[in-house]
Amino acid sequence: MADAAAKERRILVAVDEGEESMHALSWCLDNLASDKSMANDTLVLLYVKPPRSVYTAIDGTGYIFSSDVLSAMDKYSNEVAECVMEKAVTRVCKDHPDVKVETRVEHGDPRDVICQMTQKLGADVLVLGSHGYGPIKRALLGSVSNHCAQNVKCPVLIVKMPKSPAGHN
Amino acid sequence: MADAAAKERRILVAVDEGEESMHALSWCLDNLASDKSMANDTLVLLYVKPPRSVYTAIDGTGYIFSSDVLSAMDKYSNEVAECVMEKAVTRVCKDHPDVKVETRVEHGDPRDVICQMTQKLGADVLVLGSHGYGPIKRALLGSVSNHCAQNVKCPVLIVKMPKSPAGHN
Repeated sequence: MADAAAKERRILVAVDEGEESMHALSWCLDNLASDKSMANDTLVLLYVKPPRSVYTAIDGTGYIFSSDVLSAMDKYSNEVAECVMEKAVTRVCKDHPDVKVETRVEHGDPRDVICQMTQKLGADVLVLGSHGYGPIKRALLGSVSNHCAQNVKCPVLIVKMPKSPAGHN
Repeated sequence: MADAAAKERRILVAVDEGEESMHALSWCLDNLASDKSMANDTLVLLYVKPPRSVYTAIDGTGYIFSSDVLSAMDKYSNEVAECVMEKAVTRVCKDHPDVKVETRVEHGDPRDVICQMTQKLGADVLVLGSHGYGPIKRALLGSVSNHCAQNVKCPVLIVKMPKSPAGHN
């Protein structure tokens, strides 16, 4: 079994705009994969855009945003996703320029989407920060890491920031 | 940061009599450490004996076990600990004969003891099965992995059995 590290692994890393998920990514690169084995691995970076319902009112609540506001929200959400992905890919390529990287941007409840994508993509391990999703979304959506640890079938690596529990970027 | 894997790490693996924790140990050996980096690592195997209060009556409940029964319970508990440790060490040495292995047997509530030992031993990562402690103790003591994921400061790797949720050994 000592040579199992040579087989290809799909490492799914859930990233978001917080520094904690970037720390989780770095820790994973430094510890989960040596330079040798990383060449056989595929790193899948997953960013989950929050569900529209977090920002927008649902039919029946009496609040309806104009299409301009909805459009601006979508634009903002896409820009954040692009920014996060660029930062994450840069972080990976800096340390492991030979690693295969895939990026996925999905939307929905991060808890459900991460679990679904872990299974769909056949991930061998799921890596995420302990908060998973920043303080605002955590308050709205609950603990992502707890939910994923309980529901995905593959190993889960939960990485916290070494000192401050809050992201500081 | 790519050479960070060369620094010594202390990998704490919580083991018990269930096959799930042995699977977590194997997964950790295959994925967390390549042959190269493993030579610089110390693997600490931690077995936590259940608290005496799980088996014995507390003062005031009206039940008092004889010293013979208590002695037999302690003997059994020690034998289980030795058996688990021998199995775990054998598993490690088979795949990574050069790795430094330390064993620790503690007693108490596994949730608290694992968190305390993770900090006390300066572990760089904690590895445990998702059940952490077999079905009987889990029923008595609650989810170890959830508790540890929330309370330890270092990264936590939770490894489930690939198919059956129950250990099959």
